[in-house]
Amino acid sequence: MHEQDLVLGIDIGGTNTALGFVERSGSLTQYDVMPTRPADSAGAFVAALHRRTEALRAEIPFPHRLVGIGIGAPNAHPVRGTLEQPVNLDWGATVDLTALVRKYYDLPVELTNDAKAAAAGEMMFGGARGMKHFIVVTLGTGLGCGIVADGRILTGASGFAGELGHMTVDPNGRECRCGKRGCLETYASAGGLVRTVLALLAKRCDPSPLRSLAADAITSQKVFAFAQAGDAVSLCAFDRTARILGMKLADAVACLSPEAVFLAGGLAAAGDLLLAPAQRYMNDYLFRAYRGTVRLLPSALKPGEGGVLGAAALIWNKLAAQHSPEGKEGAA
Amino acid sequence: MHEQDLVLGIDIGGTNTALGFVERSGSLTQYDVMPTRPADSAGAFVAALHRRTEALRAEIPFPHRLVGIGIGAPNAHPVRGTLEQPVNLDWGATVDLTALVRKYYDLPVELTNDAKAAAAGEMMFGGARGMKHFIVVTLGTGLGCGIVADGRILTGASGFAGELGHMTVDPNGRECRCGKRGCLETYASAGGLVRTVLALLAKRCDPSPLRSLAADAITSQKVFAFAQAGDAVSLCAFDRTARILGMKLADAVACLSPEAVFLAGGLAAAGDLLLAPAQRYMNDYLFRAYRGTVRLLPSALKPGEGGVLGAAALIWNKLAAQHSPEGKEGAA
Repeated sequence: MHEQDLVLGIDIGGTNTALGFVERSGSLTQYDVMPTRPADSAGAFVAALHRRTEALRAEIPFPHRLVGIGIGAPNAHPVRGTLEQPVNLDWGATVDLTALVRKYYDLPVELTNDAKAAAAGEMMFGGARGMKHFIVVTLGTGLGCGIVADGRILTGASGFAGELGHMTVDPNGRECRCGKRGCLETYASAGGLVRTVLALLAKRCDPSPLRSLAADAITSQKVFAFAQAGDAVSLCAFDRTARILGMKLADAVACLSPEAVFLAGGLAAAGDLLLAPAQRYMNDYLFRAYRGTVRLLPSALKPGEGGVLGAAALIWNKLAAQHSPEGKEGAA
Repeated sequence: MHEQDLVLGIDIGGTNTALGFVERSGSLTQYDVMPTRPADSAGAFVAALHRRTEALRAEIPFPHRLVGIGIGAPNAHPVRGTLEQPVNLDWGATVDLTALVRKYYDLPVELTNDAKAAAAGEMMFGGARGMKHFIVVTLGTGLGCGIVADGRILTGASGFAGELGHMTVDPNGRECRCGKRGCLETYASAGGLVRTVLALLAKRCDPSPLRSLAADAITSQKVFAFAQAGDAVSLCAFDRTARILGMKLADAVACLSPEAVFLAGGLAAAGDLLLAPAQRYMNDYLFRAYRGTVRLLPSALKPGEGGVLGAAALIWNKLAAQHSPEGKEGAA
């Protein structure tokens, strides 16, 4: 009986971890989400991940063979296979995640930054198919970014190219968990949106349903719901987020000159509350050689699933390279 | 008798054009500088350039053969061979400079952005030999930039990657000739330094020799000389320039993660009045994954000559590719 080759894709975020099994075509089976629980150790997390994986695998309704594991995670080093000083996790300075996973699975494991994995997914299965120059920005707990230049994921000299979340918006601005001030992700991310709400509640005096919530209880989802219901503070928070995001994306475009910028991750689900104004602001700040030519697009991959597909794309891309007579450079 | 193969390298700047003849080794013969005179037409400029070239060529003291012409110029498109909307020249919207030059010379002509040419020169003959990821910033009339990623000059989707001079420092800031406001080159360039002096003369009330000069008569060279003599306004202007340059270079590093950033062009000759504080400020604004690992270096090519060597490198690189059995991707 024919066994379907599957890759396990794992997308580790600051809050949640998504996983699922991905065919070469990009078809996704048994997708699930579990809490990342950053307070735990990395070892405890991988043990829980293994249990969840095996439970899911038992539910796959067809004969299959697991051929590799792709992982996207914050601050992952694409060459060393480690997590290095992950800002939004509390697992220590350097975590050899590849070794921890290989305790359970004697399979090829590819690890890269979660946003670089999202870029690999967009290139292999999503809206960037055929593009040579594009940027994927993931708006979740923080702001991640994967850059493709000349058809290849840009790693840079350090392995950490694409830390757009730590471009400086305001050198005297908000404290960032990285230790700097005024980083883009303190404004343009789910957490940044909530901080902007708090700043607006301080500055303005019009009524808002947000005033009855504790700071800890305000989430980007609630701000989105209030904005859709017409709350002026929530609408203003989205507009400010879009302006800062658009301005800094224009700076990134001035470096990289991509065809398109894709928005992925939780906050990108806010759709035209964020995307349309961010496109307009980005265009305002673009140098005229680029103006009107760079599209800001939603990721073509489903929210949540994109990271899993991208993580799996790392393995599928590697397997394709091994079976190609000349080898293949790509989303490694 | 043996004829030495030479490439004519031409570096067109907003104020001056430098030219010279370059051997494969990087040895430069008969270097000269002429005014670009941006008020003239492009045709009149190329006619003058031809006269100057032939006069220089007559002085070459050994038998030689001209094998190609490399040109670096503002807003040059590396694929189309045209100048497109050059901000600091008044030669019309699109200038087919390659065709104008080929009226006089039936030789291979390669045209690219002046700063991309500087990057090609740094990679072939300068301080970036052996580096795969670096940035060259030219500080002249404006701020130009050439980016090398994975060993190749980055063109981006538009051909105009690397317009760091038009990253936004302050959306409500200084008017830029590009039509935007607050572009980096309105602060960090020879002209930007002079504008910072004017702003400081407005803000401060201490005496300065700069107060006896008309705005039109203040040049970056004079500010440099006054700074060396201890003038507080001039010293402050260099420090502010270094801070803004360092902050925006940190943003570019967050995109690209280079090994080093090279400063070239007239203002880079200010040396430690600019370089040392810019390195310190850049480091302050760097994300911790890069901090302390990215060197800010002066171009290893002589001031003025770097652009000519880089322009010539375009042709030498192309000739090397033609003679290599596999072809060669590189500084094209």
